[in-house]
Amino acid sequence: MFEKIALIGIGLIGSSLARVIRCENLAGHLAISTRSADTLKRAEQLKLGDSYTTDPVEAARNADLVIVSVPVGASGAVAEAIGPVLKKGAILTDVGSTKASVIAQMAPHVSQGVHFIPGHPLAGTEKSGPDAGFPDLFKNRWCIFTPLPDTEPAALERLSEFWRRCGANIDTMDPAHHDMTLAIVSHLPHIIAYNIVGTADDLEAVTKSEVIKYSASGFRDFTRLAASDPTMWRDVCLHNKDAILEMLARFSEDLASLQRAIRWGDGDKLFDLFTRTRAVRRSIIEAGQDIDAPDFGRQAVGSPEKKTAE
Amino acid sequence: MFEKIALIGIGLIGSSLARVIRCENLAGHLAISTRSADTLKRAEQLKLGDSYTTDPVEAARNADLVIVSVPVGASGAVAEAIGPVLKKGAILTDVGSTKASVIAQMAPHVSQGVHFIPGHPLAGTEKSGPDAGFPDLFKNRWCIFTPLPDTEPAALERLSEFWRRCGANIDTMDPAHHDMTLAIVSHLPHIIAYNIVGTADDLEAVTKSEVIKYSASGFRDFTRLAASDPTMWRDVCLHNKDAILEMLARFSEDLASLQRAIRWGDGDKLFDLFTRTRAVRRSIIEAGQDIDAPDFGRQAVGSPEKKTAE
Ligand SMILES: NC(=O)c1ccc[n+]([C@@H]2O[C@H](COP(=O)([O-])OP(=O)(O)OC[C@H]3O[C@@H](n4cnc5c(N)ncnc54)[C@H](OP(=O)(O)O)[C@@H]3O)[C@@H](O)[C@H]2O)c1
Ligand SMILES: NC(=O)c1ccc[n+]([C@@H]2O[C@H](COP(=O)([O-])OP(=O)(O)OC[C@H]3O[C@@H](n4cnc5c(N)ncnc54)[C@H](OP(=O)(O)O)[C@@H]3O)[C@@H](O)[C@H]2O)c1
Repeated sequence: MFEKIALIGIGLIGSSLARVIRCENLAGHLAISTRSADTLKRAEQLKLGDSYTTDPVEAARNADLVIVSVPVGASGAVAEAIGPVLKKGAILTDVGSTKASVIAQMAPHVSQGVHFIPGHPLAGTEKSGPDAGFPDLFKNRWCIFTPLPDTEPAALERLSEFWRRCGANIDTMDPAHHDMTLAIVSHLPHIIAYNIVGTADDLEAVTKSEVIKYSASGFRDFTRLAASDPTMWRDVCLHNKDAILEMLARFSEDLASLQRAIRWGDGDKLFDLFTRTRAVRRSIIEAGQDIDAPDFGRQAVGSPEKKTAE
Repeated sequence: MFEKIALIGIGLIGSSLARVIRCENLAGHLAISTRSADTLKRAEQLKLGDSYTTDPVEAARNADLVIVSVPVGASGAVAEAIGPVLKKGAILTDVGSTKASVIAQMAPHVSQGVHFIPGHPLAGTEKSGPDAGFPDLFKNRWCIFTPLPDTEPAALERLSEFWRRCGANIDTMDPAHHDMTLAIVSHLPHIIAYNIVGTADDLEAVTKSEVIKYSASGFRDFTRLAASDPTMWRDVCLHNKDAILEMLARFSEDLASLQRAIRWGDGDKLFDLFTRTRAVRRSIIEAGQDIDAPDFGRQAVGSPEKKTAE
């Protein structure tokens, strides 16, 4: 599809892209760039591309498509470095989990004639690094674009086609709405998960080993999200601050009200909330966004002791 | 193992017990009792026992082992009803998720010569009712007893052996410690999950259908817990109030501090917390309490579109 694709950043997302680009034969030449010599070496051992460099400028030069897959806080510096060498007609995109901040950081460094199209594939796992990627990570997942007002439809369509070939379905929305939506469906859940695991880790009355031993009773479900990459999530928190603070305020308000219902023994209120939330789960399963196997189907893959306890 | 076992309550837990009692041949006669005619009929269709009644007294009469598996708020009334007919030497136990309250409710109705041993199998799923049970629910899970000071060791050992034959491992602790431990490993996670799903359900800026569509980005992981039985969880909240309020207070305090770090852009603090929580996940996996497959192994059981997105 493209003569030369450059991947800047070769972690979970970058290396999954490298793998699907190879499988689907989407690039004549695949140039890989990452910050550290170690990660670069690992990418080379995994044979993820055709050329390897720690210099993003070298990778981006002459590329028809440049995909930046680094923590969102680093996207400005990358754009500043590669901006001057991007060729006319090239498409520059990213995969960052926040969009308004990435646009503010990158857009100033993109010269006329280069198509800058911010993107975010809603696909990932709690793992990171080049070994964590796999070619069908994006299959049947959403990739959201937040095009700028002057984005050329032809360039957007070309990038959309690229992501469709990677397996994704395309959505577009404006950056502010993206950031608000992701704040509730992704950022708040991760922050809450990090927080509850932190709270449990700090207790004196219940030992750490008890928390671990009995974790299958519910706690465990939060630890997967709380094991996600700290750098990525620090950057998400810093770069989607307003939307996250808004969601946190609502969450805390609701929690205070729930706490009050518990303190005053308001069983009807508890029952109503606990009933309403069941319906959301049902919709998610009907929408094919989760499996209905009890315990996420852990039984099917794990040994019997991997069942959910309460 | 027992001439006659009576199960009072035949939902997820009761019907799983019925199934494993049958498989392992643990009772000469298995008497089943449940409140409603509908549930009783279903239990009979499923051939879960040898006799069926909506009258707990009839089921409990002459039983050597009586297991009460009803919402914790209903355990007092059940004990009051069956207390007078329990035979000398019989063991009376329960499976309730809170222990101090269940003891306070049931103990006054147990006459001398009956062995009352409160218990809690840490095994369950988000499903309820007699169809939800399965015989190896308790396999390799913990069953915690909170024996009273005057519990006879021989009776405790007999009940322990029963649960071991059901597949469980046995732990004992005092009721207050049980309630504190479960508050953090189970009750707080469920309450937080209910709360976040409620918050998402109330938003105006992001539509319900967007929340569902993009739920695989993290939100989804909470919805399983938030789909648990409303009656059971209302009762847990009402009957483990003090420990839950204590954990909620700590959680909220920690969340306020995290919120402050986000507001003031304290990246180091965020990074430290997000790093520390990763270690907890690692310990849980090492302890065999979860599988390390990305996305809980959903990929292995679901179709490709069931992957976790971020
Ligand atoms: N993980 C997910 O679930 C997910 C899902 C959708 C979108 N995203 C977004 O995708 C992007 C990459 O995430 P990932 O999961 O692929 O991360 P990752 O596995 O941790 O890989 C990060 C990559 O970025 C490079 N990098 C890190 N810090 C850098 C810096 N300061 N300057 C330049 N390069 C830097 C790393 O290079 P070295 O290793 O050489 O240091 C590595 O190549 C992030 O913006 C994230 O928000 C993530
Ligand atoms: N679910 C879990 O994950 C889990 C795990 C460990 C322990 N537990 C504990 O196990 C107990 C039962 O939970 P479960 O999941 O088996 O519940 P379930 O599937 O909802 O079944 C509840 C059973 O209790 C009966 N019941 C409900 N309300 C009653 C009342 N007011 N008076 C008398 N009987 C009543 C029901 O009878 P009808 O259907 O005939 O009305 C049914 O037989 C609870 O104490 C819970 O805390 C649950």
